[in-house]
Formats: sequence, structure tokens, C-alpha cells
Amino acid sequence: MSGTNQLRQSVVLKRRPKGEPRVEDFETVTERLPEPGAGEVVTRTLWLSIDPYMRGRLREEQTYAAAIQIGEVMTGESVGEVIASADPRFAVGDIVVGSRGWQTHSVTPGDRLVKIPHGVHPSTYLGVLGMPGATAYAGVTEIIKPKKGETIVVSAASGAVGSVAGQIAKRAGARVVGIAGGAEKCLWVQDNLGFDDCIDHRSIDLARELRTACPNGIDGYFENVGGAVQQAVFDQLNRHARVAMCGMVSQYNEAEFPPGPNLGFVVGKAVLIQGFIVSDRPERLPEWRKLATPWVADGSLVYREDIHDGLERAPEALAGILGGRNFGKLLIQVAYQKG
Amino acid sequence: MSGTNQLRQSVVLKRRPKGEPRVEDFETVTERLPEPGAGEVVTRTLWLSIDPYMRGRLREEQTYAAAIQIGEVMTGESVGEVIASADPRFAVGDIVVGSRGWQTHSVTPGDRLVKIPHGVHPSTYLGVLGMPGATAYAGVTEIIKPKKGETIVVSAASGAVGSVAGQIAKRAGARVVGIAGGAEKCLWVQDNLGFDDCIDHRSIDLARELRTACPNGIDGYFENVGGAVQQAVFDQLNRHARVAMCGMVSQYNEAEFPPGPNLGFVVGKAVLIQGFIVSDRPERLPEWRKLATPWVADGSLVYREDIHDGLERAPEALAGILGGRNFGKLLIQVAYQKG
Repeated sequence: MSGTNQLRQSVVLKRRPKGEPRVEDFETVTERLPEPGAGEVVTRTLWLSIDPYMRGRLREEQTYAAAIQIGEVMTGESVGEVIASADPRFAVGDIVVGSRGWQTHSVTPGDRLVKIPHGVHPSTYLGVLGMPGATAYAGVTEIIKPKKGETIVVSAASGAVGSVAGQIAKRAGARVVGIAGGAEKCLWVQDNLGFDDCIDHRSIDLARELRTACPNGIDGYFENVGGAVQQAVFDQLNRHARVAMCGMVSQYNEAEFPPGPNLGFVVGKAVLIQGFIVSDRPERLPEWRKLATPWVADGSLVYREDIHDGLERAPEALAGILGGRNFGKLLIQVAYQKG
Repeated sequence: MSGTNQLRQSVVLKRRPKGEPRVEDFETVTERLPEPGAGEVVTRTLWLSIDPYMRGRLREEQTYAAAIQIGEVMTGESVGEVIASADPRFAVGDIVVGSRGWQTHSVTPGDRLVKIPHGVHPSTYLGVLGMPGATAYAGVTEIIKPKKGETIVVSAASGAVGSVAGQIAKRAGARVVGIAGGAEKCLWVQDNLGFDDCIDHRSIDLARELRTACPNGIDGYFENVGGAVQQAVFDQLNRHARVAMCGMVSQYNEAEFPPGPNLGFVVGKAVLIQGFIVSDRPERLPEWRKLATPWVADGSLVYREDIHDGLERAPEALAGILGGRNFGKLLIQVAYQKG
């Protein structure tokens, strides 16, 4: 047991954000890294994942997970390098992933860590081969179940979840239409991800663009954003359409949520709307990793990372993802891997 | 081939209702009853079913079924007595059920008729053992899937569908809470149907009454009404709640539908909202009839009929069911069975 006689920095919640999170809502605290107890593993953080769901944890009220308290370290998935271990399954130098929080170092029970195999780029275990990828996989295969020739729409199509969701639907033989913010993202979604079309949600007449892109209506919708995009898509759903409700990022900064769609169409068109949280299905993540690792290796599953340097950038990165200013899977590079 | 040399009356749509349907929106036409063609069966109507879905057919736009055109006979399920038959499966005197329209007599292909067995009261094939009963059965068993000890809420609880839905959920061991309009209906739902509680949707603080009746939250909701009731129930849904969207009768007379609930909770609580139409599952009706006929016979499945006399009462009866003025399964007794 050695190498732990050092300092760690953690980002803690200073006050609950009103609207978009600001740098001043957080503070960085420095403390001596504790020694690991029995079964614990000490890791140095390499990559921290920033995800929209984190905004929900900053609210007073509990959602599906407990709220983060003032003074508490921000939660989050991250990749780290083992620097000390009291769990025989982990050795110094191993690269692991787990829910390790916004900090430069972590002392975590080995049971909560997963070793990342050699030959896989570690950051992918936070994105395309991580929780976002497994979320896309669960939503498309369990809820939307696209059939050949059906039209599937994916919002936040260039994001970590949406980009994978659309590619899975394409593999199932569906016509896939993305919705993203701005021409650059839309072009990337079409040209690099291979979606059949992609619409800019800032366009003047979203409903019309959607009708043009989906001449046979919409059979499945992977929902990441809510708001006006949701209404436009719902208006064009076909009978027996399936909606995988993954997120509604457009309202995460709002104190009060606006009214939603009248649900008469759900009856008349026999529509399925299903919310889901990937952590309810822990078996899906290893299943997805096994399935998709070869696709990432051979380049047939495309992903893009949006990397910011330094733990201190995490708060502004979170604000950015909520405002749609990221482009691809948002990551903080907290430190560099040795060797 | 005889007995058809007579007149029939049919209720046709005269103009599309604005708001609540009025008697003047319909007219009765009289014509000579045509002779049956090959395979057709001539019937004299005994019972006509009046159901909320009929309002949707009066709208200009198509929903899941084609709109009724001006001058066209109103569609509807009814029970009739065979008075002539060119289908060897049906004999004069047989009692049959089918989609026969708002008319005193009907000439229908035998393939679209079902013979009602002896020993069953014919009108039940329009209610508790008919489409409304099968709708309740499909919604509860396919979507809500109540588990022992869970809390299930049913709106329009004294109606043809809601009364059966709640009793099925009770048989599954759930705590069942009804919502109905007025003290008389609520008492009947509790005392006669055996629901654990029933709330008057006209009460001053519906949310509070619901919280009191559902101290452990709501795990399943059988939705028949929409509007403020829907919002109150949605606010108290538990994680992984299931909502069977059967109807939203509170808005069927509206020209423009009001906004609905913000769907953030669907994500956060991983809620399922599923619209369904029983005609998409034709196999459920005979299955339900087989299952429930003994329960009706032994009195363990309770139903109530609200009977109006004479075909000419059908338009005002339709207005009444949309306004919640019926009490139980709404039927028009068009003629009396002989013998």
C-alpha cells in the first residue's frame, strides 16, 4: 500500500444553480487522499464524463436518484488508473471505469469498478461503449424495436446517446432522421453517422422540414430534448408509434416545467410512450459492450468526442451540454495516462 | 326468404356537431328494408350500444377509423334478432351481436355477426361481455399488469369500461381506487363493485383526496377521461407506473384540445404510457367472453345498465355519455325480444 500520500481535488456543490449552472455554483476543495480500506481501490482520474442527467441531481427534489447536497462531491462516471489497491482483482496500472465523482483521485470499493480491457480506448467506456451507448441500445431495442423500412427520428442526434441510437436503428434497416442544433452537427450526422437525413431544430419551420424528411410519418422516436421538438415529432407519429423517453434536456435548467402535449393522440393512434433509465437494466451495459466493441474497432460504429482539459472545466462543460454547445460525447481530460 | 317486406328507420348524421352533440345534428330516415343478398342476414335491432368513441367519428378528420359522412348512418354495435337469413349459420329467431349501426333493422353479412348463446342476457354482449369489457380486460392485463398490493386508479369508474377494469384489478389483488362523477356513483363503485375507495372528480381538492386514498402512490392508471383528473393522477404516479390510455372523454366535445402534462416525469420515473384500441386485438373479445361469462353468471362480476327506450333517444344519449350523465353501461332498447 503506497503512493497515496498525496492531495486530491474534488468539485463540490456550493449552491443550487438557478437556470443554467454557473462556475460560481461549484467550488474545488483540496484534501489529503485517504488510505484505502479493505477491498478499496485508489485511482487517479483520467477522464470524467459530463452528462445532461447531472442537472437533475442539482435540484432540491429527488428524481430517480438522490439529490446532491450542498458541500457534497458531484457524482459522475469516470475512468481512472489504479495507483494503489486493497482488492486483489485490481493491480497498479489497471485502467478502470466507475462512478467516481468529479475528483482527481478516488477511493472506491473494487466491487463498483470495471476493468477496461487492453486494446480499447479508455474514454469509449464513458461514451459509445459506456452508459450513453447502453442507453441508446436499451431504448432502441427494448422500446422502439425498429422494423425494416420504418422511419425513426432521433433528437440530439449528434450527442453521445442520439448518435448511437440512430446508428442502431440504421443497422435494423430503418430510415433514420436526426434532429440536431446547427448545420455543422446536421452535416456530420448525415455524412459521418450515415443517417438518412438530419434537421436543424433551429429551422424556421421544423414541422415542415420534418414532414419533408419523413414522408411516410414517424414510427419511432428517441426523445432526448422535449419542448417544441417533441411537439413537432408527436404531431407526425403514425399509428402504433413507439417513443423511447430518454431525456428532455431543453427543460433541465427550468424552475417550472411548461405544459406538454395533449395526449389524445396516444389513445387515437395507440402510441407507446415509455420512459426508461439504463441503470434499471444493469445487464444491458456489459451486453452492449460485448456487442459493440467490434463495431467500434472496425470503425462501423462512429463516435465523436468533445474533450475539455482539466477538472476545473467541468462546471462550464455541464452548462455547455445543457445549452447544446457540445459536439459529440463530452469529456473532461483530468490527467494523462502514463507510458 | 321472407319477413323483410317492411320499413326500417336509421339515424343519419345531418351536420357535424359543434361541442356537445344535439338532437338537431341527426335525422331519422325511413326506407324499405332491402332483401338480403347471398350470405347476408336480416335482423331486427333489440339493443343499441352508445359509447364515447362515437364522438370521434363525428369529427371531420379521421382518427383510427374513418369519419362518418353527412347523410351516412351512425355506426355502432348492437344486438338483433334474426328475421331472415341467407347464411346457413343463422336461423330466424337467433340473437346476434355486431356492428349494425343506429337503425331498427340491418342487413349484414353473416361473417360480421356473432351468435349470442342461450342463457346469456343479450345486452351484456354490448357491455360487460362486449367491447367495453374486452377493452378493460386488454388494458388491465396487457398494460397495467397489476401486482398484489399495488395501487391502481381507474377513472370513469362507474362506466362500462372502468367498472370492469377495476374489478379485474381487484381480482389481481391490487388496491383499487375509482374516480367518478358525484356521490351516488362513488358509493355504488365502493359498495357494489368492491373498489377500495372512490373519489368524486368534482371535489374541491382532487389531488388531496387522491393522496389520502393512495397513501403509497399510484402504480397503475386506467385512463378514460383526461383533463384535470389526468394531471392529478400523473402527479402521484410511482416509479415504473403503467398508464393504459383508453380514452379522454372530457375533451371529446372540444374543437381544440388543451395542452397536456409536461412529460418530464415519464423519463424520471420510467413511466409507461400506452394507448390501445381493442379492435387491434380481435382475439381478446372471445377470450374475455369465455373468461367472464361464468363471473357474470355467478354475480361476482358486477355491472349496471343505463337503458333508454327507443332509437330516437340515441342522439341525446350520446350527448349524455359525453357529459357523464349516464350511470353504467348506456344502452338504447330499440325493440323488445319476442316470446
